[in-house]
Amino acid sequence: MKRLFLAIAAFACLGTALPAAAQFAKPEDAVKYRKAAFTVMGAHFGRVAAMANGRVPFDAKAAASNAEIATMMSKLPYAGFVDGSDKGDTKAKPEIWSERAKFDASATKMQDEMVKFNAAAKTGDLAAIKTAVGAVGQACKGCHDTYRKE
Amino acid sequence: MKRLFLAIAAFACLGTALPAAAQFAKPEDAVKYRKAAFTVMGAHFGRVAAMANGRVPFDAKAAASNAEIATMMSKLPYAGFVDGSDKGDTKAKPEIWSERAKFDASATKMQDEMVKFNAAAKTGDLAAIKTAVGAVGQACKGCHDTYRKE
Repeated sequence: MKRLFLAIAAFACLGTALPAAAQFAKPEDAVKYRKAAFTVMGAHFGRVAAMANGRVPFDAKAAASNAEIATMMSKLPYAGFVDGSDKGDTKAKPEIWSERAKFDASATKMQDEMVKFNAAAKTGDLAAIKTAVGAVGQACKGCHDTYRKE
Repeated sequence: MKRLFLAIAAFACLGTALPAAAQFAKPEDAVKYRKAAFTVMGAHFGRVAAMANGRVPFDAKAAASNAEIATMMSKLPYAGFVDGSDKGDTKAKPEIWSERAKFDASATKMQDEMVKFNAAAKTGDLAAIKTAVGAVGQACKGCHDTYRKE
């Protein structure tokens, strides 16, 4: 049991456990990685959002599983915003690098809302899940509006 | 502690917890998802492989963290091989769907080797990690040779 705890703790702490700049051989690898991590996160979050919005029937077990994965995934993509990765196949605005502390705060906001969303999903309470989905969605939108090109 | 166990169990069991076909609105969403999951898995596995191959200095803590994430990620992509997703921006061969049991066995083989690799990474023993990296690499290659177009 302790090992499982350490495993999940290691996953949750990844953002701080590894030096970001050393993780990618080329800036385009970092771009590809962060987009991929957002894609996987978005797929799992989107399934619960679809339940919250009534587009698909509510399934408490599936909501909890998907929220768990979305939350774990939310820890990963920001390691991909390394210096020099503002070019190429990316919609990332240069402000990410010129006002990094603000960008990081936006990232943390989303991750924090994800943690709350994950907790809500575990309760199986659809009303709580709807509220939490809305808060995550606002955090996503806030960052996209400021730091992502159209 | 029990909640953490359930969380990681939910993550590990995702492949069976959700009906695959219902997870994607369009086949191209499934293609994008599975490629993204493989990208994230490969990035984390690749970091440990680089240590095993001596291309970067061995860092036991980073190896363990990356192996944990690669192992979790290895559970995800196969949900994306839904019916009708053999077309579009994919190198997936049609044999994936015509000999599904064999493909699934290849997938399971890789996932099983990842679990062993993860256990090896936790020991911090570079020799054991090298062996396990080789076994995962063989499992990846076996499936690519058979089921991925050049």
